[in-house]
Amino acid sequence: MEVSANLPSARDKLLFTPGPLTTSLSVKQAMLHDAGSWHFEFNATVKSVRDRILEVAGVSRDAGYECVPLQGSGTYGVEAVFATCVAPEGKVAVLANGAYGERMVRMLQRLRIAHLVLRTPEDTPNEPATLDRALAEDNSITHVAMVHCETTTGILNPVAEVGRVVKRHGRVYIVDAMSSFGAIPIDFAAAGIDFLVASANKCIEGVPGFSFVICRRDALLACDGYARSLSLDLLDQLRGFEKNGQFRYTPPTHSILAFEQALNELDREGGVMGRAARYRRNHEILVAGMKQLGFRPYLDPAVQSYIISSFYYPESKRFAFDAFYRRLSDKGFIIYPGKITQADTFRIGSIGRLFPSDIEALLSAIQSVLRDMGVQRWS
Amino acid sequence: MEVSANLPSARDKLLFTPGPLTTSLSVKQAMLHDAGSWHFEFNATVKSVRDRILEVAGVSRDAGYECVPLQGSGTYGVEAVFATCVAPEGKVAVLANGAYGERMVRMLQRLRIAHLVLRTPEDTPNEPATLDRALAEDNSITHVAMVHCETTTGILNPVAEVGRVVKRHGRVYIVDAMSSFGAIPIDFAAAGIDFLVASANKCIEGVPGFSFVICRRDALLACDGYARSLSLDLLDQLRGFEKNGQFRYTPPTHSILAFEQALNELDREGGVMGRAARYRRNHEILVAGMKQLGFRPYLDPAVQSYIISSFYYPESKRFAFDAFYRRLSDKGFIIYPGKITQADTFRIGSIGRLFPSDIEALLSAIQSVLRDMGVQRWS
Repeated sequence: MEVSANLPSARDKLLFTPGPLTTSLSVKQAMLHDAGSWHFEFNATVKSVRDRILEVAGVSRDAGYECVPLQGSGTYGVEAVFATCVAPEGKVAVLANGAYGERMVRMLQRLRIAHLVLRTPEDTPNEPATLDRALAEDNSITHVAMVHCETTTGILNPVAEVGRVVKRHGRVYIVDAMSSFGAIPIDFAAAGIDFLVASANKCIEGVPGFSFVICRRDALLACDGYARSLSLDLLDQLRGFEKNGQFRYTPPTHSILAFEQALNELDREGGVMGRAARYRRNHEILVAGMKQLGFRPYLDPAVQSYIISSFYYPESKRFAFDAFYRRLSDKGFIIYPGKITQADTFRIGSIGRLFPSDIEALLSAIQSVLRDMGVQRWS
Repeated sequence: MEVSANLPSARDKLLFTPGPLTTSLSVKQAMLHDAGSWHFEFNATVKSVRDRILEVAGVSRDAGYECVPLQGSGTYGVEAVFATCVAPEGKVAVLANGAYGERMVRMLQRLRIAHLVLRTPEDTPNEPATLDRALAEDNSITHVAMVHCETTTGILNPVAEVGRVVKRHGRVYIVDAMSSFGAIPIDFAAAGIDFLVASANKCIEGVPGFSFVICRRDALLACDGYARSLSLDLLDQLRGFEKNGQFRYTPPTHSILAFEQALNELDREGGVMGRAARYRRNHEILVAGMKQLGFRPYLDPAVQSYIISSFYYPESKRFAFDAFYRRLSDKGFIIYPGKITQADTFRIGSIGRLFPSDIEALLSAIQSVLRDMGVQRWS
C-alpha cells in the first residue's frame, strides 16, 4: 500500500468524487502561464469569464443579473451571500437534508444571524409545503436558503417548487448549486432565484480556487452597509470589478485561466445539455453496474441526481471500507467515503472529465477488488 | 496596442509586481495533476507543506508553533486572524503607513472590532515609541497589528522593535509578512510574534490560491468561541487538519502541489538567505540602473526593502504612465502602478523567478521606451 503512495503512476488516478474532479489535460495546461492580476490582458479574461458564467446560467446583465467571482472555496461563496446580504435584523430559513444545509446553519451561527432550520431526513427532499407554513407563520423570515444537489447523498432538491413558495411570500431566495450548476439546467426566472452560488471545480470542470455568485443586481445593491466581513463582502467585490475590472484582492490567476479553458470545453460539449447527457449516461452505467455487482443505492431513483450516488456497504464481514478504498486507489480509482449520519454508505461521483469507459473500468476494478477481498454476492 | 493583447507571444511577459509573480515552469508544471482533496496521498502533501513552512519560518511544533493554511488570498489570512483571535471586548492597535495597514482598519470596521490607528506618513516606518505610549495609556488594547513590508511603497517596518514594545506590554502581536516571508529573515522568538500571515504567491514563488498563518499554538487555542465567520475560522481550520489531515473545505489542490515544488526550489536556492541574496542583487541593479536613467526613488534607501521599489514619474510633459506601461507590456515587461496617495509614482518589484539579467533587460526596455516617447533626461 505504501509503495503506491510513493511511486508515481503513469497517469493520475481518476477521481470519482464530488470535486475537486478529474479535469482535462488542456484545462490544466492553461495554468502553465503567469498572468499579472492588475494587467489589462488578465482583466479582459476576468470580464469574459464573468460574462460567460451568466450565459451558462441562461441569464444576462440586460435581464438584471450579475456574476461575482470570489476567491476561496464554494463554502466562502455561500457564507459571503449571508455575510453581505442579510440585514442586521434579518432571519434566514434554511432547508436542510444533509451536511451542506447544516453547514449553512453553522455559518449563520458564526455570523450571529437569526435563523430557522427546516429539516427533512437525508433521503427526503426539501418540503415546499412545510416552508410555505413557516413563511406564513413567521413574518420575520427575510431569506430562504437551500442546497440544490445535496452531495451528502446525491439527492436533488426541488429548486423551482421551493422558489415558487419563497416568491409567493416575497422573500429573498438563496440557492447553493455548487455541484449542479453547469450540468443540471436551472431556470433562474421561473425559480425566482436571487443569489445562486457555485464553484470553479465542479460541473464546469475547472480547478479549485474560487467560487462565483450569480445574483439579481438589484438584490445585491440593496445590501449596502450590511457586510460583516471585508474579504467576503460581495457588494464591494462587485464594485471592484466595476471600478477597474479587477478582483479587489489577489485572484487565483491560474485557476481563472484554467476556468476559461474549461468554459471553452463546456461549449464544445454542447453546453449544459451536452454535459448533462454525458453525466446522466455515466450515472446510468454506474448504477446498473453497481446493482449487478450486488450494491444497493441509498436513494430512491426518483430523487437521485446524476451527480453523485451513495451505495450501502455490502452486508459481508469481509468488507471493510478502508481496505476497499485503498485497493481501488492502488488500481487508479479514487472513490469517496460516505457522509450520511444514519447509514454505512460510500459515494461515487459521475462528474468531471470522466466518460462511460471510465465508469466501466471502475466497475471492473470494483468487481476485482471484491473478489480479492473475498466479498461474495450478498443481496 | 490591441494586437499584443490578442496575439500570444513566445513566452509569458515577465511580472515586476508584488505578486502574483513570475514563477518557474517547474512550479507551474506541478499543477498538471488532479489530486483528490480527501485522498491520503494529498493529505501527506498538505502535512509536508505545513511542516516545511514552519521550517522556512525557523520555528517548530516543539517550540509551540503551528502553520494553518487557509483558502483565499493573503487578505483572507489577515482577516481570519482578526475574525478568529480577537475577543468580543478586544481592541486592536494598527500601525499603518500604507494601503495594507489601512486595509486592516477596514477589516476591523467590518468585523465590528474596536481599534485604534497609529499612522506615520507613507515614507516613514512605524514608530515603536508612539506605540509604547499608546499601550501605556490604553489598557483596553489587546492586540497590535503591523505590516512588515508595506508594498504600497516598499518600505520595511521595524518588526522586531515593534515586537519588543508589544511584548513589554504583554499584548498579542500580529504581523502581515505577506511580501517579506521567505526572503527577509524574521526572528519569531526575538520579535515575539504570535500570528504571522503570508501567502503562497509571494517570495516562496508559488501560485495564488491560499494564505497561511504561522502562530503560537497556545495563542490560537485561547480563542475558542470568538470566531465571527465559519470560512475564516482559523481555529476550526487547525482542528480540521488535526482531526483527519484535511482542509475543512475544498482546498486549491493545484496551488498546493505548485507550492510543494516551490518549496523544493527555495531549498535548492539556499533557503531564505539564498533567496534574499538574489532579490537584493535584483534590487541593487534595478535602483542603480533606474537612477542612471534619471529616475528618483521615492524612499530613503535606509528604509527601502529589496522587495519592491517606488519611483517618481519623470518630470517631463511627454511622460504618461499609461503609455509607458503599455509600451513596456508590448516589449514583454509588466510593471506596477503606484499606490501612494501623495505622489505620482510607479512600482517595480524585484521578486519572483527573476534574475539580474531580467532586471537588465527591463532597464534596457525602459531606456528604449523613454527614447520612443521622447522623454529626455529630467534630473
